[in-house]
Amino acid sequence: MLIECIPNVSEGRRPEVVAGMADAIRAVDGVRLLDASSDASHNRSVFTLVGSAAAVEQAVLALFERAVASIDLRIHKGEHPRVGAVDVVPFVPIEGVTMAECVALAKRVGAAIAERFKVPVYLYEEASANPARKNLEDIRRGEFEGLVAKMASESWAPDYGPSSPHPSAGASVVGARMPLIAYNINLATDRLDVAKKIAAAIRQSSGGFRYVKAAGFKLEDRGIVQVSMNLTNYEKTPIFRVFEVVKREAERHGVSILESEIVGLVPSAALNAAAEFYLQIEGFKPEQVLENKLRQA
Amino acid sequence: MLIECIPNVSEGRRPEVVAGMADAIRAVDGVRLLDASSDASHNRSVFTLVGSAAAVEQAVLALFERAVASIDLRIHKGEHPRVGAVDVVPFVPIEGVTMAECVALAKRVGAAIAERFKVPVYLYEEASANPARKNLEDIRRGEFEGLVAKMASESWAPDYGPSSPHPSAGASVVGARMPLIAYNINLATDRLDVAKKIAAAIRQSSGGFRYVKAAGFKLEDRGIVQVSMNLTNYEKTPIFRVFEVVKREAERHGVSILESEIVGLVPSAALNAAAEFYLQIEGFKPEQVLENKLRQA
Repeated sequence: MLIECIPNVSEGRRPEVVAGMADAIRAVDGVRLLDASSDASHNRSVFTLVGSAAAVEQAVLALFERAVASIDLRIHKGEHPRVGAVDVVPFVPIEGVTMAECVALAKRVGAAIAERFKVPVYLYEEASANPARKNLEDIRRGEFEGLVAKMASESWAPDYGPSSPHPSAGASVVGARMPLIAYNINLATDRLDVAKKIAAAIRQSSGGFRYVKAAGFKLEDRGIVQVSMNLTNYEKTPIFRVFEVVKREAERHGVSILESEIVGLVPSAALNAAAEFYLQIEGFKPEQVLENKLRQA
Repeated sequence: MLIECIPNVSEGRRPEVVAGMADAIRAVDGVRLLDASSDASHNRSVFTLVGSAAAVEQAVLALFERAVASIDLRIHKGEHPRVGAVDVVPFVPIEGVTMAECVALAKRVGAAIAERFKVPVYLYEEASANPARKNLEDIRRGEFEGLVAKMASESWAPDYGPSSPHPSAGASVVGARMPLIAYNINLATDRLDVAKKIAAAIRQSSGGFRYVKAAGFKLEDRGIVQVSMNLTNYEKTPIFRVFEVVKREAERHGVSILESEIVGLVPSAALNAAAEFYLQIEGFKPEQVLENKLRQA
């Protein structure tokens, strides 16, 4: 069983503090820290770790212990919006684990954080049953500085913990979500208006696919434009469907697709779904992938 | 490093003999026996095992020891053509290993077999530099019964071992090849002539793609026809190219593709290549597949 967890922490300028948090994660048996990156202008660090539910839970609590002791949001400045010392903790199902199990894990960890560190916890995305609490942006609006006022409203009572923010550590947002795919499609044109129109056509916020965020950009050095996307649930809004609609919308403007690119990681199931669609493969099972079979045996 | 080896043995009727061979394979440290299937009418068994080069080599020699001691081709009957007690031994690169390393392994194992068991060995496919010895069918033509006469010809001197067959164990064919993909495309028609024409258009033997074997069949119960294929090198003749040509050839007869199917296992790289082609993904690297990254870390 493999769960990915990507805690975002409000500290990106003191390397010794970040290193201490990374060490705390690495010290947990059965956890692998795949990546740790800090951004000084955001004053924020992102850790990527994987392990079983129990191992990942222990690592997150160890991280909180360090973060709450060493980060004070009253003196924290940075470009990135944040509401807590440990700002966001998403759990992502990778292998041999369901979304429901990741939701249960988010709730268990959320309750433990509130209990041990007296930090109020908001559940988000798949872990939240409240439509007003699904989106991270909605929960984080007003940031740390606005938390006291926000939490005074009954509709912003936290899911776990005290009804007012922790003085130095604020509040934390904990949840479960699908792996996110950063996907760009480059168009064989320099017409930014075409990229922007297509982005508007496919993103949820303006009537497009539910699990697509998109924007149009100019790639100045190459003289072309790009539809830049985040696909937040590749099972429900698959890559190939987004690609085909972008292609069709571009055609309507007399424009063709030059190429696409996947930025960073992609689950193999998302690529397999594209192969199945285009090759019209019926009755395909993940066990038919040689590598999956070898890992089972 | 993971190499797959699929030895074919001329015994499919005496379960205790087959079980003894399977045990000999399993007894080797670092080898996993993924599958063992016997066919009584073929009087033949196929073992599928994986491991490092050293582990797989040891397993093949252990299998030979059992097979040569318990199989006598002078009294063996079966529908499937065969030339040896251990008839064919292909090595297939799976992960962290090149084809060149599998060729080297085939040569090392071939030499060891000849040395230890006095069985003449023919190299085939990628392990053979001789164009007349690439195809298994060419080497096996005439079968065990024709071996004495065949080996009398200078052009059939073996790559390793004695210049005449082992009295009871015949000769063995050892080599390296790419994973084979069994791939079928079903057409939305009952016209067998269309399936046969398309099969002829795409298979190497009649002028088609180099690494495609194909035939047209009727699926009587469904009232449709099928182009049934073996893709013997998915890197050089990829699935998507074969699919697109079949689709185009079918169109010319006013026929469309109903569906396709992958029978058994497929390497994930073969599916990823299809996703890359249709989604026009540029600069994609295998390390971007989440599961690959997790296994490296």
